[in-house]
Amino acid sequence: MNRRMIFSVVGKMVTAEAGLLILPLATAVLYGESCAWAILQTMLLALVLGQTMVLLSRPKSRVIYAREGFCITALAWIFMSAVGALPFVISGEIPHFIDAFFETVSGFTTTGASILNDVEAMSHGLLLWRSFTHWVGGMGILVFVTALLPSVSDRTIHILRAEMPGPIVGKIVPKAKDTAMILYKIYLGMTAVMVVLLLLGGMSLFESLIHTFGAAGTGGFSSRATSIASYSPYCQWVITIFMLLFGINFNLYYLLLIRRFRSVLQSTELWTYLAIVVVAIALICANIRDLYSTFAETLRYASFQVSTIITTTGYATTDFNLWPGFSKGILLLLMFVGACAGSTAGGLKVSRVVIMAKNVGRQLRQLVHPRSVTAVKFEGKTLDDQTAHGVGVYLSVYLFCFVAIVLLLCLEDMSFTTHFSAAAACFNNIGPGFDLVGPASNYDCYSYFSKFVLSIGMLLGRLEIYPLLIALYPGTWRKKS
Amino acid sequence: MNRRMIFSVVGKMVTAEAGLLILPLATAVLYGESCAWAILQTMLLALVLGQTMVLLSRPKSRVIYAREGFCITALAWIFMSAVGALPFVISGEIPHFIDAFFETVSGFTTTGASILNDVEAMSHGLLLWRSFTHWVGGMGILVFVTALLPSVSDRTIHILRAEMPGPIVGKIVPKAKDTAMILYKIYLGMTAVMVVLLLLGGMSLFESLIHTFGAAGTGGFSSRATSIASYSPYCQWVITIFMLLFGINFNLYYLLLIRRFRSVLQSTELWTYLAIVVVAIALICANIRDLYSTFAETLRYASFQVSTIITTTGYATTDFNLWPGFSKGILLLLMFVGACAGSTAGGLKVSRVVIMAKNVGRQLRQLVHPRSVTAVKFEGKTLDDQTAHGVGVYLSVYLFCFVAIVLLLCLEDMSFTTHFSAAAACFNNIGPGFDLVGPASNYDCYSYFSKFVLSIGMLLGRLEIYPLLIALYPGTWRKKS
Repeated sequence: MNRRMIFSVVGKMVTAEAGLLILPLATAVLYGESCAWAILQTMLLALVLGQTMVLLSRPKSRVIYAREGFCITALAWIFMSAVGALPFVISGEIPHFIDAFFETVSGFTTTGASILNDVEAMSHGLLLWRSFTHWVGGMGILVFVTALLPSVSDRTIHILRAEMPGPIVGKIVPKAKDTAMILYKIYLGMTAVMVVLLLLGGMSLFESLIHTFGAAGTGGFSSRATSIASYSPYCQWVITIFMLLFGINFNLYYLLLIRRFRSVLQSTELWTYLAIVVVAIALICANIRDLYSTFAETLRYASFQVSTIITTTGYATTDFNLWPGFSKGILLLLMFVGACAGSTAGGLKVSRVVIMAKNVGRQLRQLVHPRSVTAVKFEGKTLDDQTAHGVGVYLSVYLFCFVAIVLLLCLEDMSFTTHFSAAAACFNNIGPGFDLVGPASNYDCYSYFSKFVLSIGMLLGRLEIYPLLIALYPGTWRKKS
Repeated sequence: MNRRMIFSVVGKMVTAEAGLLILPLATAVLYGESCAWAILQTMLLALVLGQTMVLLSRPKSRVIYAREGFCITALAWIFMSAVGALPFVISGEIPHFIDAFFETVSGFTTTGASILNDVEAMSHGLLLWRSFTHWVGGMGILVFVTALLPSVSDRTIHILRAEMPGPIVGKIVPKAKDTAMILYKIYLGMTAVMVVLLLLGGMSLFESLIHTFGAAGTGGFSSRATSIASYSPYCQWVITIFMLLFGINFNLYYLLLIRRFRSVLQSTELWTYLAIVVVAIALICANIRDLYSTFAETLRYASFQVSTIITTTGYATTDFNLWPGFSKGILLLLMFVGACAGSTAGGLKVSRVVIMAKNVGRQLRQLVHPRSVTAVKFEGKTLDDQTAHGVGVYLSVYLFCFVAIVLLLCLEDMSFTTHFSAAAACFNNIGPGFDLVGPASNYDCYSYFSKFVLSIGMLLGRLEIYPLLIALYPGTWRKKS
């Protein structure tokens, strides 16, 4: 176990966070807000803390393995969330640290769950920081830093693998740093297009940035209490479509760029994802047709809510708490499905659900014809047994964690729907749930203990469980193994 | 596909059901109740229908494979439930067929969910039939008939395998018929002991039989509206302990009989099961200590409710709907865990949960040390990959079915807790859920459509999904394959 290397890389990440804070600092200065001081103090603190870690842990060897990759990822996310929470605490805009930690974890993990009762009272600088964490966390904190910094290690791929979601993680190009660069260029390009489209719709630059960060990272923080409801139908449609786009595997965009159109068209995950979206919108439209006056309106509300939930963004244009049970059931189901692997979205991921279904099909064939030998194919390739098996194992550990979160929440006396949907919404990085944590309310109703549990749940969900479990297991840290 | 053999065996099963109806007929005659005629008519009908099926489908070959085993199991359960519902309909005590079908499926699958608003108005004969279905369904309709009838086929093991719950099904002794006989002898012996203990506690013979059938099959039908609440603490403890005993793998009782004590003591599943029970009771006791006056009372209520839920029986001595959220959360979790494989209980089964946890442990080890080769051990043996993998796949299909049931229920406008717990309680063969379907109420609040969905859910849960899926898949029935 190369402990020095772990703390060295984490130290570099914390240092880099000081750089990330430049954008909110500039905003705060531009608007002449006093939170600029809080941001500046945090930047200094991040520099000092990060550099101390780097200096104290000069690694003898720069070699890292999968184990170190998991620990770096887990620790980097925890440290960066803790440091990222400081501007809120120092400025006094979110006085309690656990509240600020919840909000920052919610930002980096692109959950979008909030404890703020009055979001419109916040300063512009901190609102931008809150939304910027979505943008950075969406594609990955470590991917981001890897893309920017000079090579951290020769084996950065172990870090990227630990951070990127989905059952199969591959490099697009041989070098991890180049992969990270390409991903971020695509991400930046799509972000720029969306900002321009929102500006054309009459949104201010500040609000365009806030909502583009939220949609790109599939996060969901807004600068308005009513989320997206008060914007024009044009803006709502732009956000609907871009949320769906950011829910697609970014490897496919790379394939588009290098003109391998056939590979894109043959993607099982892409077609399944689109099919789920269309079917869900159709079912909900049929179910809520009496609630709205025109078909266009019904379609817009249904599309927006399906898009925001399946991509685990969490914006809202209406309080879906008031929809009939069947529509709520579909939304709750989509919360668990999530969007595509390799996107900025959370949840189980469509590819896992597809592999699960294919595993079931193979099992049925084997039960009917016990001597037949069948393999599971996915995206044109035969899945090796370990990957196919791994999906079932992931489902198990996913359920264990989910049940543990729900049980810990149940220590507080609220409705089961509240607890269940709060756990689902945080663990799958969505944001709003049902009942007391629905789109029209927030997570402030929970105690600090529950908020901490939910914060851990968000991290578990974003990092797909294993990195945190491995980092928390004492055996991992033994010197010899 | 040997279709003739399938219908021939199902025909024999339906004929055998006429024999099962002798016990309720005798009861009805003894109490001089008019439902005796309804039972007699059903017996005649079962004889005619069963013998017609047998005569029309003289099999050319008596060979069956796994496929035929699944289809026989699925069809036998559906036919026997449909026929078993007739006495209720003919006598007019449950006028609508879907209601009666729900009640009978609930009986055979040992769910214990009821649509009866006034159970005490029912005749003794039909109450006994209702509870007797628990006893027969608990160990298995087909196991029962296999034990009694002259050998149905040389490969009866395929039928037993399809019907018996758990991830690993083995014969205790080489011949399937002997295995079935041994299982039923143990079952009968334990049933007799329990009846005697309840008689000693002052219960009438009729009520002792009813509640022993309910506990032995881990079903949960009672003859009283208040379930077990009105009986003495002694009787409650007897039922608590026997429910737990009937939740243990019957293979272990066989091992006890042949004095292989060491094998019993080394059973991982047994110890895990007992540990879950003890921890759950302790946590609930701590959580509800303020609700009851003495510790003895608290312990009794907690033990009874844990025992009834983990064994998926469904009796109640108190309305756990009124307990705090944490206790309800634990009970809801236990609903999914269920008791041991090879017992009369439902749910996922403890052994599956243990294998799931071991799979996760192996996955973590493999992530940390990618080149290590590790195997999953269970009950002292190394699990082959197919079984270990199979648990993950079962979990997937289990969740797909569960989600489908919840979504179909959501078409009706009731609380999410009601729908979720109704689906959980029926699919896991427990009986009572929370909210509108809690222990103090029943399933009559649902529409006929939902009752039908829940009936299918109970069958899916009892037969562990695959037999029904295979029987419903048209490809299975193709002549050549």
